[in-house]
Amino acid sequence: MSFHQHTLANGLTLLGETIPASRSVAVSFYVRTGSRDELPSESGVSHFLEHMMFKGTPTRSAAEVNLAFDRIGASDHTNASTGEETTEYYTAVLPEYLPAAVDVLADMLRPSLRDEDFVTEKQVILEEIKMYEDSPGAMAWDYAKERYYAGHPLGNSILGTTASITALSRDRMQGYYDRRYVGPNMIAVAAGNFDWDHYVELIGSLCARWPATPAGRSNISEPPGIGGVHLLSRPDATQQHMLVMMPAPAADSPLRYAAGTLALAVGDYTGSRLYWQLVDPGLVESASFLTDFNHGAGLAAATFSGDPDTTAANLAVVQKVLADVQRDGITADELTQAQNKITSRIVRYAERPSGRMRAIAGAWLATGEYADVDRELGRYEAVTLDDVRAYLDRYPITASTVVGYGPVTSLN
Amino acid sequence: MSFHQHTLANGLTLLGETIPASRSVAVSFYVRTGSRDELPSESGVSHFLEHMMFKGTPTRSAAEVNLAFDRIGASDHTNASTGEETTEYYTAVLPEYLPAAVDVLADMLRPSLRDEDFVTEKQVILEEIKMYEDSPGAMAWDYAKERYYAGHPLGNSILGTTASITALSRDRMQGYYDRRYVGPNMIAVAAGNFDWDHYVELIGSLCARWPATPAGRSNISEPPGIGGVHLLSRPDATQQHMLVMMPAPAADSPLRYAAGTLALAVGDYTGSRLYWQLVDPGLVESASFLTDFNHGAGLAAATFSGDPDTTAANLAVVQKVLADVQRDGITADELTQAQNKITSRIVRYAERPSGRMRAIAGAWLATGEYADVDRELGRYEAVTLDDVRAYLDRYPITASTVVGYGPVTSLN
Repeated sequence: MSFHQHTLANGLTLLGETIPASRSVAVSFYVRTGSRDELPSESGVSHFLEHMMFKGTPTRSAAEVNLAFDRIGASDHTNASTGEETTEYYTAVLPEYLPAAVDVLADMLRPSLRDEDFVTEKQVILEEIKMYEDSPGAMAWDYAKERYYAGHPLGNSILGTTASITALSRDRMQGYYDRRYVGPNMIAVAAGNFDWDHYVELIGSLCARWPATPAGRSNISEPPGIGGVHLLSRPDATQQHMLVMMPAPAADSPLRYAAGTLALAVGDYTGSRLYWQLVDPGLVESASFLTDFNHGAGLAAATFSGDPDTTAANLAVVQKVLADVQRDGITADELTQAQNKITSRIVRYAERPSGRMRAIAGAWLATGEYADVDRELGRYEAVTLDDVRAYLDRYPITASTVVGYGPVTSLN
Repeated sequence: MSFHQHTLANGLTLLGETIPASRSVAVSFYVRTGSRDELPSESGVSHFLEHMMFKGTPTRSAAEVNLAFDRIGASDHTNASTGEETTEYYTAVLPEYLPAAVDVLADMLRPSLRDEDFVTEKQVILEEIKMYEDSPGAMAWDYAKERYYAGHPLGNSILGTTASITALSRDRMQGYYDRRYVGPNMIAVAAGNFDWDHYVELIGSLCARWPATPAGRSNISEPPGIGGVHLLSRPDATQQHMLVMMPAPAADSPLRYAAGTLALAVGDYTGSRLYWQLVDPGLVESASFLTDFNHGAGLAAATFSGDPDTTAANLAVVQKVLADVQRDGITADELTQAQNKITSRIVRYAERPSGRMRAIAGAWLATGEYADVDRELGRYEAVTLDDVRAYLDRYPITASTVVGYGPVTSLN
């Protein structure tokens, strides 16, 4: 296993981990762009644009893009996703099909954005928004982020709204594309069985003419959360979703490892404090402690969902857990168990080339450095109770913004 | 990568693929038992018993079983599943935790089957049956198998019915357990980074006293399908589910490779004949060509679901596709594309130790032989148009039993 990197003249950075024992290769393009990079007037454009990438190029129709993946056996390993700050396009193939895979990926990233496709796909996006609105857990998270961030762009919705998508024009999308899909704002990452020099040559020939315009990101501040209690009333919902949100380290902070470890001890889906206090006795449907480490700012949240009538009592349990942990930290046993879980997850995740590809991209986008599996494991294994204390002192988990989504209108 | 096998004095067979480059190890016990091995009076007992395995042993409570997995970071890689002819219990851990993982797995497979746990878990199973009944696609498949097999035990329901589960006694379950969970009827399979000799010693010390009683299987005949058209009317369903079922090779038949390849060309979820004829033009919600290769008998089915009003017309399209393929076979391009898909899937599946473990177990249970990735790939790569013809001649895909589930009461 060895790591390689190269940057083209236009700023596009190529990363690769060659794993000769592997029998496949995963490859993807990452764009440092997402909902946080959208203007209010273009809310949802990142995700809509991601859909448009599959709709054809000057040399391929939408059907031909799909057929190209299908022919090389890649159709069920090909996809894309859009987040707050990254948009990803990936595939995985047998080694002999890497050139064909890179050819279609690079081509689809220079899309035609044809008017008729834009109009058709807009309906698909509007449908997706409606389906999303039927998912209370997802809506609760969106609403909670928006309230917590109180105007900071990390609170932006990824899907956008019916209004913002309806109002979006093709030219606006083209403008966003021209601004964000530029060499210095993208990386191409491969992992698995492939020849690095050949890969560099291939990407070089296909992507050398992509624009070299620099693309930045505005507002990298670290918001502390708006504070207070915010209840969005949904009288027709049967369950109440609650999120107790607090600041957390940014993606490039060394405190991230202690934060990630503590999150498992406090709120893993099994064997954690929230599990034993709330889930195991049947007081709630589910409970968790989430972390979301982003560029310049992070967010953590203790969450639970369940019977609206017991919401206030369950919230008190959560707040007591958080206060206890804030005061006393976690135990050595809890730390060890959380470390066993997280190292096991990292190792399992890294077993496939596609897992390595994502891990390499994630580390690079967060810190600009390469993290191999051993280094990443080492960082979690090195977490001590003192590190947990340092994290809690810097980002108190009691400094909370409480957000509710469901039938509850008052916590008194 | 090297393969090992060993059989204990009581008939329990141990299989292992050691992969020194791996950072984890997957381990599981497979029992050659499932719904086809149940008496009519114990329908659903295999699956119910699988649940009971997590409910405690003479030395561990249910909570202690779960805690044992949780402590070694294995909780999200541990599970069990029950099928028509195999029941599986698996986990995956970091190499240093293999002894602890095997210890709890071997212990849980000698369960206490306590009365009070049996009564509590029975309610969980009855809930699961109710939830399953809300899933028309799954119910359609169950109903179709039952009709097609017309009394052959491969048509048995895995979950059982509300009536059969309600009537099931703890002693009946104990009897089934004593009959089926015996050394000669089980295998223990490991793949990944582990020491084979140590593993044999470990399993030997934990499982040597398991009973050596032989366990067979009755009725290994190859039913041709009952034929005809069978419509189960569900007036409240919004979609119609249709299955055109036909015999297919058994799991140990060399024709299986041609059958699996043809299935992708005819009915893969994208880029197949049914996809282009039915899904792409929007005539149906979904269409597929399934294969189910079992001990002594196989089954294939062209399926689709969609608007009840167009069911008869869509069925005619499916029957025309099947007749065309039966007469002319598939093209060389279709064969190549299907081979690319299937080899890509095999390789991706085999990338993790848990994937290797399942592949080794599957091949062993089907044929009693070890199949490494290259051998398996080679068998699909070797499929020719003549092999496809030989398969079609032996198992005509036009020899069908048509089964419907939904609002349609007549196809005229």
